[in-house]
Amino acid sequence: MKSKLISVGDEILIGQIINTNAAYLGEKLFSAGIPADKTVVIGDEENVLILELDDAVRNYDVTIITGGLGPTHDDITKPVLVKYFKDELIQDDKVLEHVKKIFSSRNIQMPDINIEQAMVPKKSRVIWNELGTAPGMLFESDNRIIISLPGVPYEMKAMTENFVLPYLAGKLKSEGRVYLNQRTLLTTGLGESSLFQKIGDIKQVTGDAKLAFLPSAEGVRLRINVQSDSPADTDRQLDEIENRLRWKIGKYVYGINDERIEKVIGDLLRKTKKSLSVAESCTGGMISERIVSIPGSSDYYLGGVCSYSNKEKVRILGVSEETLNRYGAVSEETAIEMAEGVRKLTESDYSVSTTGIAGPDGGSAEKPVGLVWIGYSDSEISFAKKYNFGSNREINIKRASMRALEILRRKLLNTDIEF
Amino acid sequence: MKSKLISVGDEILIGQIINTNAAYLGEKLFSAGIPADKTVVIGDEENVLILELDDAVRNYDVTIITGGLGPTHDDITKPVLVKYFKDELIQDDKVLEHVKKIFSSRNIQMPDINIEQAMVPKKSRVIWNELGTAPGMLFESDNRIIISLPGVPYEMKAMTENFVLPYLAGKLKSEGRVYLNQRTLLTTGLGESSLFQKIGDIKQVTGDAKLAFLPSAEGVRLRINVQSDSPADTDRQLDEIENRLRWKIGKYVYGINDERIEKVIGDLLRKTKKSLSVAESCTGGMISERIVSIPGSSDYYLGGVCSYSNKEKVRILGVSEETLNRYGAVSEETAIEMAEGVRKLTESDYSVSTTGIAGPDGGSAEKPVGLVWIGYSDSEISFAKKYNFGSNREINIKRASMRALEILRRKLLNTDIEF
Repeated sequence: MKSKLISVGDEILIGQIINTNAAYLGEKLFSAGIPADKTVVIGDEENVLILELDDAVRNYDVTIITGGLGPTHDDITKPVLVKYFKDELIQDDKVLEHVKKIFSSRNIQMPDINIEQAMVPKKSRVIWNELGTAPGMLFESDNRIIISLPGVPYEMKAMTENFVLPYLAGKLKSEGRVYLNQRTLLTTGLGESSLFQKIGDIKQVTGDAKLAFLPSAEGVRLRINVQSDSPADTDRQLDEIENRLRWKIGKYVYGINDERIEKVIGDLLRKTKKSLSVAESCTGGMISERIVSIPGSSDYYLGGVCSYSNKEKVRILGVSEETLNRYGAVSEETAIEMAEGVRKLTESDYSVSTTGIAGPDGGSAEKPVGLVWIGYSDSEISFAKKYNFGSNREINIKRASMRALEILRRKLLNTDIEF
Repeated sequence: MKSKLISVGDEILIGQIINTNAAYLGEKLFSAGIPADKTVVIGDEENVLILELDDAVRNYDVTIITGGLGPTHDDITKPVLVKYFKDELIQDDKVLEHVKKIFSSRNIQMPDINIEQAMVPKKSRVIWNELGTAPGMLFESDNRIIISLPGVPYEMKAMTENFVLPYLAGKLKSEGRVYLNQRTLLTTGLGESSLFQKIGDIKQVTGDAKLAFLPSAEGVRLRINVQSDSPADTDRQLDEIENRLRWKIGKYVYGINDERIEKVIGDLLRKTKKSLSVAESCTGGMISERIVSIPGSSDYYLGGVCSYSNKEKVRILGVSEETLNRYGAVSEETAIEMAEGVRKLTESDYSVSTTGIAGPDGGSAEKPVGLVWIGYSDSEISFAKKYNFGSNREINIKRASMRALEILRRKLLNTDIEF
C-alpha cells in the first residue's frame, strides 16, 4: 500500500510555518507499513487542491490531507471535498455540543462562526476531534481512502493516534504483506565522513539493508532500514546491524530512535540516585530547559543558574573576582569555578557549566566567536574542555549545550571524553 | 515567474527530519517575487527524482532542489542531474582546495571520499559553498533554471543569500512584473475565532488583500498579502491594512513579521537602560534561553535561576519555607516571592517568574496539570497571575514562557495585562 500526504496552507508554502505535520505523519505511516511516497504542500487554492485529489485517487491507496479546516474564510478543505465528492453539508449535533462545551470550559463566549464547525459532509465519516473544534473527515471510494485532518498539530496527532492508525491497521490485509522496519543510532562528537570511514565497507555491515547518514548541529543520526516477510525477522536484522555498527563506532552512540540525550542522562541519574545542577552562561538556559523537558526530571534535577553577567557569576556562583580579572569570563578557570560553584550552591552530585562567546560580536583574535569552555564537576574531579563551535550564534548555543550533555553522559558511564 | 521546491531525502519523507529548508526557501522566493506554487518531498530514488525533474522543466521557471549532495553512498542528486542533463563530472581544483582546507582547519584528517565532493558537472555553474564541502550546481536550459543545493541548513542558507537570490533578482525582468508583498502581525493572548470576531467584516479591513489566521501555541499570526504594479504601492496597502487591524486588536499585537517578543522586550529595556532577571520553575530555563538567544542581550539581561526543587527556591531565591508549606510551590505567594527573590539577588529592575504543574503527572483536583502562576516584580509592584495552559507538557511550557514574556512586554509599555 502506498500513501501520499497533502498539506494545505499558504503559510507553509511561503515558509511562515514549518511542516511538522508531514514529518509526524510520515513517521507514523512508515511504521504502519504504508510509507509515504510523496509529500506535497499547496496553497489555499481550490483548483490546486482538486488536481492533487485527482492524483491521490488515481495513484495512492491512502491520502491524508492536513489543514484548511478552521472557522475562518481562508479555510478551503471542507468546501472543496464536498464539491469533489458531490456531497452536501449536514449538521452534526454531537459535534455542535462539543464545540459549545470547549468554549464554555474556557469561559469564552462562542463566536457564531464556530457553528459552521459542526457542519459535516453527509457521505463522510466524522473523525472526532476531542481537543479542538474542527472535526476530521474520512471518505472512501473505489478502495481509495481520503482522510482530512485539522492542521493544528496536537489536534491532528490525537486524531491520528486515536482513530487514523487503528483504522488503517484494520484495513491492511496480512497476506503477502511486506514488513518494513527501521532503527536509528544517534551519535554525537564525530562528523559524517569520519563516521563513514570508521564504519568501513558499508555492505559488509548492512547487507541488503539501507543505511543513511543524517547530520545536524547536534550530531549524526544513522538510520537503518530493513524489510522482510515477518516482523520478527526485521527485528533480528536490525539487532545484527546495530551490533556491527556499535562494534565500530559505539562510543559515539548515545541512544536510538527518538531517545533524547537528556532522557538518557536522567535515567542514569535516577538509577544511581544522584542529582544534577547546571551553571550556564553562553547557552543561556538551554541545558536546563532540555533537562526539564523530560517528565519526572524533578527526581534528579535540583536547578540551574544562568549567570549571564560577571556580577552574577561572582554573586550567585562564587566565581572569584581574581579569576575573572586574570583569565576572563571565557576561560578554563571560570568554567571550572562555575561548575564547582553551582554544585556547592545546590549540593548536587554532578554539575556542568558553559561559558563562551556566542557571537555575532564580542570575539577577539585570542578569543574568537565560537570559543566555548565547558566545565564539569563531581565529588572527585573538576575540569573544563575547550571547543570552537563556529560563528553562528544559534548553532553555537545548540552545539555547546549538546556537548555539555554528552560530556556528562560519558562521565556517568565512566567512558573517555575525547572527541 | 513560478517556482517549485524539491526536497530529496528519505529522512524527510519518513519524518526523521523536519523540512525547515522548504520553509526558508519558500519565504525567500515569495519575497523575491517568484513564489513557490508547490513543494515536494521525495525519497532517495533515482526514478522519482527524474519524474520531478520532468515536471520542473515542463512547468516551472525556477526549481530548487535541496539535499542528496553529501559524500556518502545514499546521496543521489549529483549523479541523477549528470544523467538527466547528459553531462559528465570534472574535477574543480578550487573546490578541492577548499574541501582540504576545511578539514585541516578543524585538525581532522580528510577522509578520501571527500575528494568526490570536488567533482562537478561540466555543463553546470558551480555555486560556492563557503561553509561546507558540497558545492551547489546551477543548470539552465530553455529558460528553465534548475538549482541544486546541499541539505545542511546553514550551508544552504548562506549559498541562497550569497548567490541564488542575487542571481534570480538579475533574471527577473522589471517590465510587466507584478509585485507581491506581505506583512504579518504577531498576536498573543487571544484565540483565533475571538480575534476574527473582534476584527469584524474582513473585506472592510482588507479590501482586495488576503488575510490569513495562523494559530500556534504561542499566539495567532495574521498574515496580510497584497499585490500591485509598484513596490511602493504594496507598502502603502500594507500600512493601511495594518493600521485598520491595529485599531481593532492592537493591544494583542507584539510585533510584525519575524520579530521575536524577546527582541521587542530587549529593545524596550535597552532604550530605558533597565535590567532584567528571571526565576523559573516549570518553564525550566526556556524564558532565560529565549532572552539570551538575542545577540547583545548582555546589555540588559543579568541572569536567571531555574529553581526546580523547593530547596533551591528557598536557598537561592529566598522564598520562605512557611510560604511553601502553607501555600505550596505552585501558588500565587510562591510566584511573587520567586520574582522578588531573583530581582533582589541580581539587583535587576524587572523580573518575571513561573511556577506550575507542567505534567504529565503531579496534578490534583485542586491543582490540575497545566496550572501555572506567573509572577512579576519591579520597584513599584509585585503580583502573580494564574493560568491553565492544558495537559500537554511541551505546549504548557511554551505557553507559560510566552505569557510571562507578554506580561513583561505590557508592563514595560504600561498597558493593561488582562487576557
